[in-house]
Amino acid sequence: MKAYALYTAEERRAEYEALVKKYEDYKAKKLSLNMARGKPGKEQLDLVSEMLAILVDYDDYEIDGIDVRNYGELAGLPSARRLFAEILGTQPEEVFVGGNASLQLMYDLISKAHTHGLLHSPRPWCKEERVKFLCPAPGYDRHFRICETFGMEMLTVPMTDEGPDMDLVEELVKDPQVKGMWCVPKYSNPDGICYSDRVTDRIAALKPTAPDFALMWDNAYCIHEFEGEFVPFRDMLRLCREQGNGDMVYEFASTSKITFPGAGVGVMAASVANQKYITALIGCQTIGFDKLNHLRHVRFLRDKQHTLELMQRHAAVLKPKFDAVLSALETEIAPLGIARWTKPKGGYFVSLNAMDGTAKKVVRLMKEAGVVMTGAGATFPYGKDPKDSNIRIAPTLPPVTELQTAMEILCTCLKLTALEQLGV
Amino acid sequence: MKAYALYTAEERRAEYEALVKKYEDYKAKKLSLNMARGKPGKEQLDLVSEMLAILVDYDDYEIDGIDVRNYGELAGLPSARRLFAEILGTQPEEVFVGGNASLQLMYDLISKAHTHGLLHSPRPWCKEERVKFLCPAPGYDRHFRICETFGMEMLTVPMTDEGPDMDLVEELVKDPQVKGMWCVPKYSNPDGICYSDRVTDRIAALKPTAPDFALMWDNAYCIHEFEGEFVPFRDMLRLCREQGNGDMVYEFASTSKITFPGAGVGVMAASVANQKYITALIGCQTIGFDKLNHLRHVRFLRDKQHTLELMQRHAAVLKPKFDAVLSALETEIAPLGIARWTKPKGGYFVSLNAMDGTAKKVVRLMKEAGVVMTGAGATFPYGKDPKDSNIRIAPTLPPVTELQTAMEILCTCLKLTALEQLGV
Repeated sequence: MKAYALYTAEERRAEYEALVKKYEDYKAKKLSLNMARGKPGKEQLDLVSEMLAILVDYDDYEIDGIDVRNYGELAGLPSARRLFAEILGTQPEEVFVGGNASLQLMYDLISKAHTHGLLHSPRPWCKEERVKFLCPAPGYDRHFRICETFGMEMLTVPMTDEGPDMDLVEELVKDPQVKGMWCVPKYSNPDGICYSDRVTDRIAALKPTAPDFALMWDNAYCIHEFEGEFVPFRDMLRLCREQGNGDMVYEFASTSKITFPGAGVGVMAASVANQKYITALIGCQTIGFDKLNHLRHVRFLRDKQHTLELMQRHAAVLKPKFDAVLSALETEIAPLGIARWTKPKGGYFVSLNAMDGTAKKVVRLMKEAGVVMTGAGATFPYGKDPKDSNIRIAPTLPPVTELQTAMEILCTCLKLTALEQLGV
Repeated sequence: MKAYALYTAEERRAEYEALVKKYEDYKAKKLSLNMARGKPGKEQLDLVSEMLAILVDYDDYEIDGIDVRNYGELAGLPSARRLFAEILGTQPEEVFVGGNASLQLMYDLISKAHTHGLLHSPRPWCKEERVKFLCPAPGYDRHFRICETFGMEMLTVPMTDEGPDMDLVEELVKDPQVKGMWCVPKYSNPDGICYSDRVTDRIAALKPTAPDFALMWDNAYCIHEFEGEFVPFRDMLRLCREQGNGDMVYEFASTSKITFPGAGVGVMAASVANQKYITALIGCQTIGFDKLNHLRHVRFLRDKQHTLELMQRHAAVLKPKFDAVLSALETEIAPLGIARWTKPKGGYFVSLNAMDGTAKKVVRLMKEAGVVMTGAGATFPYGKDPKDSNIRIAPTLPPVTELQTAMEILCTCLKLTALEQLGV
């Protein structure tokens, strides 16, 4: 095998014809595979389902002197706040434990910024002429969708291999209309990049002109290694506080990929001043979240060490799936020089950059062959990848055998489109 | 015993002195009792706790072809939508099953009205110069608090014994700034009034000037009889539809007082057009709510008939508590002619009207004697009862013996303040 760029026209044509036939054969199989979303697979769900048998006895419902079945404890069950404070390396009083999803906590914070303003807002964001938000990209499509639904202007910040381009970020935050930034600091979605200390320090030390700049620190994959040992991460609340930015950061995490994707708990960590301000607003919205589920998590996860042991069991399920993706790319694509991809050690994605101008086409061909991928462009603001190159591979849901088939098809589609791009 | 109004000055003085002594004796006991919120008691929680032992087997997690442990089903588990449609008398496709509280669904709807507008809004409410909301009063303080937190102007509508004063409502909805109304149609909070068919028909037939008028139909106590058989209620969605108002009504219900106050499920029923519009917005907020809890409810409650049987068991716990309240008032207060109160057959409250100008004082005296009541005025917009008369009694949390003590103290405080008002 050699790089396609070195093929003669004739070689390309022969290769292309063989690939077309191969692709048609896949299509004829009428497959139905899915590599679209970061969804845990059944084996992972089974791994944690014993959690549901934990809370069944009549005298099990009291903890911290609270009957968890009844109303109350707006900021979450105290023992759950302690558990997540330990995992995040923050203080219990900085932790709000909410409902079944951190996405909802993020949305609600942005929503309240619009209707009420944040702690240091001169006015609610809906009264601002324009609100801009920094979006490191490629990034998480659901973050961008929150910006879009609130009519915020998204400013794309390119990702480097150690985090967002900080020269650009430092420049952009001088604009008083720039009100915040999305970050996935560990195993970023989709690149799997861990922000370097240098980048993290620069973020903590930002001096945004907007007094209510919201650093949306989505630590979604904070303990989600699938290869190797747990990699410690820094307490961003403390780093910001030390820089005089204590109220700038809102950290999010959830157990969606630790316990149940549909029935975990979402967490928001923020300064005590922020917690006080926000819980006063949330107090108009609810009497409290599901403390029975908080308690289930406390009993099942116990503490950080025990949770990390569980994550190693998830890792044992996930590693072969990522290996299947990476080895297919390594074997089939690497020698051809038609794509680049990340090799993360944690998180839920492999980020693939196909030849410029081909991502949409690859995803369309995949769909026609029965494999659903994340829409091309979804990892960029407004769903528009300027290079039409990035494809997010989510290998966690399908069993390994299905994944291998899906990857064979992906490699075929990558080759087909590359040859078309090069000219056949 | 005779009415205080008929007492001579001397009789009043003697009575007052005896009461002061009695009150001081209560105070000396340093009690700590609570009749503040509509919180179920421990016995009720125990009644339903077997629900938590339902969902523990590995092969239990699939229903409707869905693994409930994973992401998905934004509008709720289909079988849960069917269950609540049966209970509410609506159609499954009209039912959204959410998180652990209907209050949050109400807040979120009003919040989205402000940030995005409702289906027929000309613009988001935050872009309106002023938004007014009709608040039948006495009413539910948390409804009013939602209005307050969004800066809406509350217009008080007096309650009659068959629902809100409809002559006034029909007049007020001519104002294009009037964007909605709160209603608790069955066993209203706090009066325990069931809206008559005549009132309900007039509400369904309203012709508000605002095209996006939101009828917030909080059917919180729809199956919550504590005395007698289940009283059927009408499907407000159908009634509105028949009047050409299909998109005007949003009906809310929850299992907070059927299963767990902290860990039930909240439900919003609305027209299919509304559901389509709202779920598109909610899709930016979350991937879905806790379907494991949906399934727990489906398995435990089964169907309407089985749920009504459970409500009869709740009733058996609640009836003695309401009896304790009513018999104390009947024996101690009725002959004196110093207060009026409702005698509901369902819901969670007894609404007491003390002599004008005394409610705040009564609640303060209660607090000083160790009994926490709902704040006087809380049942009115802005927390201001124009007559300073209404006191909401919430008898569900304390055991009967504690309740009896609390009621003795309440009767003492009512008498004391009445005598002071009459002059001693």
